[in-house]
Amino acid sequence: MDVVVGIDIGGTKTKLGLVDEDGKSLVSTRFRTREYPELDHYLDKIRDSIDTLVQDSPKPVNLIGCGIGAPNASSRNGTIVNASNLVWKGTVPILKELKKRISLPMRIMNDASAAALGEMLFGNAKGMRDFIVITLGTGFGAGIVANGMLIDGYDGFAGELGHIDMTIGDGRMTGLNVRGGLEAYVSATGLKRTVMFMQSKYMDESRFRSIAYNDLHGEDITRAAEEGDPIALRAFDFTADILGLALANFTAFTQPEAFFLMGGLVNSGKWILDPLEKYFNEYLLEVYKGKVKLLQSGMAGKTAAIAGAAALIWEDRIG
Amino acid sequence: MDVVVGIDIGGTKTKLGLVDEDGKSLVSTRFRTREYPELDHYLDKIRDSIDTLVQDSPKPVNLIGCGIGAPNASSRNGTIVNASNLVWKGTVPILKELKKRISLPMRIMNDASAAALGEMLFGNAKGMRDFIVITLGTGFGAGIVANGMLIDGYDGFAGELGHIDMTIGDGRMTGLNVRGGLEAYVSATGLKRTVMFMQSKYMDESRFRSIAYNDLHGEDITRAAEEGDPIALRAFDFTADILGLALANFTAFTQPEAFFLMGGLVNSGKWILDPLEKYFNEYLLEVYKGKVKLLQSGMAGKTAAIAGAAALIWEDRIG
Repeated sequence: MDVVVGIDIGGTKTKLGLVDEDGKSLVSTRFRTREYPELDHYLDKIRDSIDTLVQDSPKPVNLIGCGIGAPNASSRNGTIVNASNLVWKGTVPILKELKKRISLPMRIMNDASAAALGEMLFGNAKGMRDFIVITLGTGFGAGIVANGMLIDGYDGFAGELGHIDMTIGDGRMTGLNVRGGLEAYVSATGLKRTVMFMQSKYMDESRFRSIAYNDLHGEDITRAAEEGDPIALRAFDFTADILGLALANFTAFTQPEAFFLMGGLVNSGKWILDPLEKYFNEYLLEVYKGKVKLLQSGMAGKTAAIAGAAALIWEDRIG
Repeated sequence: MDVVVGIDIGGTKTKLGLVDEDGKSLVSTRFRTREYPELDHYLDKIRDSIDTLVQDSPKPVNLIGCGIGAPNASSRNGTIVNASNLVWKGTVPILKELKKRISLPMRIMNDASAAALGEMLFGNAKGMRDFIVITLGTGFGAGIVANGMLIDGYDGFAGELGHIDMTIGDGRMTGLNVRGGLEAYVSATGLKRTVMFMQSKYMDESRFRSIAYNDLHGEDITRAAEEGDPIALRAFDFTADILGLALANFTAFTQPEAFFLMGGLVNSGKWILDPLEKYFNEYLLEVYKGKVKLLQSGMAGKTAAIAGAAALIWEDRIG
C-alpha cells in the first residue's frame, strides 16, 4: 500500500512514521534530537530510521514521498533558520542534505503549518475555510488557514508568533532574546518558567519548593493542580490569561472560525482550558463574541505531528 | 463610459466619486458624516450625491455598480457593526437600506480591505501576493492580502486590528473601551492624544500649551515638529515606536512582502516615517529582517479611499 514518511523534528524528540491516506500511522518511532548535534549524523539517523520503519511495517509499503515538519522551517527554501529550540544554529539546508540520502519527493514546512494541514486533511477542521492551529510544546507555533488556504507568507515564514512581543509583566526573554515574547509564557516551557516565577512572587507552600527546574515536568504541574497546589493553580491561571489575550488578538487578524490547540501544554486539560475559555471570551472584541470556537485537535495524540508532516505529500494526492 | 460609484464612509467625512477602470475619479464630492445622525437622511444624502455626480461628470457615464468601504463593515452580511467612529450604533443594515434607493450591483467591505483591493488593482501592490494596507485616519484599519487573496475571515471581520490590546504604558481606552488598544495610540486621533499625554509627562515649552484638544489638527503637529517643538517630536517618536512594534508583530502573522501606509497620520511624512523605519527594523525578528518593505500607497491621495471602494466592483471585471 502507498504510504508517506512523516517526520516531525522537535526540540526534544524527532518522531517518524509511515502514514496512510487516512492519516493513520502504520508504524512509528522516535529518538532524542539532541543526541545528534552534528547534522550529518542526525540525517543518517533519519535515513536509518526510515529503513527500520519499512522493515517493521505490518504490511508491505510503497513510499510515495516524505513530508517534514520542523520549527522555523521555510517551505520555500527548504531550510530551517535560527530555530531557538534546535541544536543546529543559523540556516540549515536540511532538504538539500536529506535528498542526498533519500530519493523521494520531499517537502518541509513549519511544524505548526504542517499540523494545520493535517487537521484539515485528517482531523477536526475538515471543510473549514478559516482556522488556526496553535501548538504549545517546547515552543509556541501557529498554522494559519484563511480562505481555505494555508498562509505561507512572502518567504515561507508566516505564523512565527512565538516571539511576538506581548510587553507583559516581567518581560521574560525568549530563546531568540525577544523580551516579553509570547512563547516565554505560553508553551510547556513557559508554564515551567511561570511555576518558578510564582514561587518568587508568593510565599505559598507548594510541592514545587522541593523540585528543581530541570526536574520539573508538565505532568507534575497538572498533578499538583489536582491536589490544589496554589502555585500550580496560579501558574495555570497566569498562562491562560496571556494565551487568552493572544488568541483574542489573533482573532482580529484573520477572524478564524476556530482555534485548535495541541501540544504538551494542552495535556493539562481543564486546568489550562477552563481559565483559557474565560479569559479568551473576556478579551474578545464584541464583534467576534460567540463566533470563535476553542477546539481540541482531532488528530490522535501521539502521531498528530507525524500525520501533519505526511499531509504535505498527501495533500497533492487527495487534497 | 462605464464607471463605478465608489463610496468611502469615514468617521469624519463621507467621500463619493465616479471611478473609471484605471482607478481614476472623473468627479468626486464629500460631506460631513456627522451631519446626518439619522440613517435614513444619510442614505438619502448618498442617493442625492450620486445624482449630482452623474450630472457634474465631464463625460456621459454608465453606472455599472456601487462599491462601499466603511469601518467595521461585514462583506458577508452587508452590515456595519459597532463602529466606534460612526454616529450609528449597533448593527446597521446599510446595504439593504441603500438598495431601496439605488438599483445597482452593490458590495460593501471594511474600508481598509477595500483600500487593499484598490492598492492591488490600481496602486503599488500590483503583482504582489502578500501585503498589508494600514489606514491611519480617525481609527486604525488593516487590509490583509495573503496568497494573492484578500483575507475576509469567517464572518467578514478580519483585520480589525485597531482594538487589539497592546498592554502599553498608560493603558488608554479605545472607542470600544479596549484598554491599551492600538488605535488609541496609532491613528490621527491617537497622535492628538499623545500630544496631550506628553504635556502631562514633560514640562517642555510647546506651542501646544495654548491649543485645546478640540482645536488641534494633524497639520499643526507636523508644523510644530518642523519648528523643533519638543512635544511634537516626542509625540511622533512615541507613536512610531508603538506602530513599529505592531507592524513587527503583524509580520509574524502573514509575513507580508510590504506594508502600505495611508491616511491622515502618514501625511506627517518623515516625522512619523523616519522613526517608524528605525523602530520597525529594531523590533523585527531576525528571520524577517531586510525582507519587509514599508511603502507609501500608490493611490492618488484624496481619492484613494473612493477608488478602493470602487475596486470592489471593478475587481470582477478586470481582476
